[in-house]
Amino acid sequence: MNEEKNRMLESLGKKARAAEKTMRSLSGERKMTGLLHAAEALVSRTEFILKANEEDMKRAGKACMPASLQDRLALTPQRIAGMAEGMRQVASLEDPIGSIREMRRRPNGLLIGARRVPIGVIGIIYEARPNVTADAFALTFQTGNSVILKGGSDAISSNKAIVTVIRDSLEKDGLPFDAIQLIEATDRETTTAFMHLNDYVDLLIPRGGAGLIRTVKQNSSIPVIETGTGNCHVYVDESADIDMACRIIVNAKTQRLGVCNACESLVVHRDMLSSLMPALVPLLQEKEIELRCDETALPFVPGGVPASEEDWGTEYLDRILSVRTVSSLDEAITHINTYNTGHSEAIVTNRYDHAQRFLDEVDAAAVYVNASTRFTDGFEFGYGAEIGISTQKMHARGPMGLEALTTIKYVIYGNGQVRP
Amino acid sequence: MNEEKNRMLESLGKKARAAEKTMRSLSGERKMTGLLHAAEALVSRTEFILKANEEDMKRAGKACMPASLQDRLALTPQRIAGMAEGMRQVASLEDPIGSIREMRRRPNGLLIGARRVPIGVIGIIYEARPNVTADAFALTFQTGNSVILKGGSDAISSNKAIVTVIRDSLEKDGLPFDAIQLIEATDRETTTAFMHLNDYVDLLIPRGGAGLIRTVKQNSSIPVIETGTGNCHVYVDESADIDMACRIIVNAKTQRLGVCNACESLVVHRDMLSSLMPALVPLLQEKEIELRCDETALPFVPGGVPASEEDWGTEYLDRILSVRTVSSLDEAITHINTYNTGHSEAIVTNRYDHAQRFLDEVDAAAVYVNASTRFTDGFEFGYGAEIGISTQKMHARGPMGLEALTTIKYVIYGNGQVRP
Repeated sequence: MNEEKNRMLESLGKKARAAEKTMRSLSGERKMTGLLHAAEALVSRTEFILKANEEDMKRAGKACMPASLQDRLALTPQRIAGMAEGMRQVASLEDPIGSIREMRRRPNGLLIGARRVPIGVIGIIYEARPNVTADAFALTFQTGNSVILKGGSDAISSNKAIVTVIRDSLEKDGLPFDAIQLIEATDRETTTAFMHLNDYVDLLIPRGGAGLIRTVKQNSSIPVIETGTGNCHVYVDESADIDMACRIIVNAKTQRLGVCNACESLVVHRDMLSSLMPALVPLLQEKEIELRCDETALPFVPGGVPASEEDWGTEYLDRILSVRTVSSLDEAITHINTYNTGHSEAIVTNRYDHAQRFLDEVDAAAVYVNASTRFTDGFEFGYGAEIGISTQKMHARGPMGLEALTTIKYVIYGNGQVRP
Repeated sequence: MNEEKNRMLESLGKKARAAEKTMRSLSGERKMTGLLHAAEALVSRTEFILKANEEDMKRAGKACMPASLQDRLALTPQRIAGMAEGMRQVASLEDPIGSIREMRRRPNGLLIGARRVPIGVIGIIYEARPNVTADAFALTFQTGNSVILKGGSDAISSNKAIVTVIRDSLEKDGLPFDAIQLIEATDRETTTAFMHLNDYVDLLIPRGGAGLIRTVKQNSSIPVIETGTGNCHVYVDESADIDMACRIIVNAKTQRLGVCNACESLVVHRDMLSSLMPALVPLLQEKEIELRCDETALPFVPGGVPASEEDWGTEYLDRILSVRTVSSLDEAITHINTYNTGHSEAIVTNRYDHAQRFLDEVDAAAVYVNASTRFTDGFEFGYGAEIGISTQKMHARGPMGLEALTTIKYVIYGNGQVRP
């Protein structure tokens, strides 16, 4: 790691820490105004941002980037307006900072409360979607944190432009513009050094594909919240309503394919194969879903293909669904707990005891009875925002709204108490 | 790392995971009975434990272990009874597992609640205090977790005996005895490998001195909760009541010396030096506290010695207090935020605005107005137990009771909902 890059990162870190001090005490009103003005600035400087995005798109074209990735990278006036709208939505959410859920009076008269406070400096490492830049800023700013962004090299010009527009707007408002900073170097060495900036970064959140998340998790010495990977199952229990099961499976699998809360594996009680499959298979095949089945299920699935061991652990994010037969609820739960990624799991059942046992025994961030896994989402849960879906157990689990970007601090009001 | 040790750790990990599955669904009643019986077993097998402890004490004697450490290592019938009593106290606490703070009904009819669940497998790395063995077991067992213990080599015989007694008692009760396991190898290589057992351990908590905690934090790839280090300040504001200030400082500094919530540094407004010091200095000198003062304070402290830059950042855990003069609340807050370890900080004041600003702007787990820092403690906070005091911001901050050893899982009751 060369000295110059290290100095650059340290300098960013120091500025983020300095901004954090102001951010910590900023009123909800000032944060709201800051976000609304930044949203306005994004729209009014659309031309400036589009011009920068053109540079990224030209490089992407030369590098023969796949069309789907180019689509994620491309900005349009509508997309910039969408980013601004997202910012306004976050600005309209209640400021979580400073509130105290409960103050308890201890026998000695001390009044003790846990006050919600910002975490401090949050690092976000992401790929080539420039909208994450605006999105991550809005969420961290509304929660009183400083953010240091490390976006993908493909989007560097767009990201620089977006960050410039936001910083200019904050400066005009007399707000600490160093609350948002971008690491402009995009080489791997810099990214690795960023993951060890423990003195200046309190939390790292990777946003992107499974590879990115794994790399950050394995290399960071800063605490990381893992998000994203979802090998989600729907289990059709012996007592399930066939119509409901079909609706839920079709929705969980096909409503949107490339998302972490989509269903990747169907688990079926063997006694249900003959009634479920004739109704379900045509619905899925209509949506061009390939069915990879175990030996028991295969005869019930015209056009199905045999599944291999590897299928049970695969998050396809594609038009594929694996089908596994079980002969009991126990076997279903064991199968799911063996292969799942701790994201979202559903049972379709009419048995009260099976519903309760599934909720109790399946180990995942979100466990559903008779509903689609697609609801695991900050907006659907009513948080009004989402920084990601945590699939790990520390600090935050499941959809992360604003509160996941905060911590607590105990405030204690005394009148001279000493410990006996 | 040799293969055999790796296999040993993996085997422990697998057993802990298997036990976790049963632990997760154990009722509060069965956990309570298990703890009460284990406490009984500790007492009834006192001879067995004392015999093992003798081996440790003999080795300690031969190795010329300092008397204070030998005292921490030594067990007596009273101390074993104390361990059992601690276990009974934890058994009497309300089981946090399974409760849901609030279930919200979404517009689409989904009922969504965050249920408190165990974390899974918790690793505890500690030094030569055998009582931690019983203590850590009680807290992790009551919260439905499995625990893997890695104690210091000095206490290995005592730890083996205590773990054997507890496992035997669990087995007799038909409870999963692999919910408590001890790593019997005490070499450094094994400890390092333990810190990378990510597939089998969800959380590591180091308990012991600053050196141990730093080592675990720097080397573990498993999430760690840092506990313990406390460079705590008491700030005497210009409007402070002198009597109250003296009482709080003497208590915070001297009530117990070697603890993390003891005061290590006094910060004084310059206008208070002439009134505070004549009252305070004799009280502290009576307790043989050495006062290390900056230039401004020194003339007001007969017998004081000059402080060096290093003093401001030192957690003495000893009969020493540093004294720093400031000319404003701002300067006091900046000084504290520069040198503190994020543990406990107090202001003594009669000014409403200064009290509020101190609570707002000082960055620490616990911030006090007009009370001693010594109250930062799970029992004093009313949690009935304590696994440590977190000085970091992720997952848990401040005194950690049972809840810190849990996480949440969303349970969702539907009746056929799919995402539009």
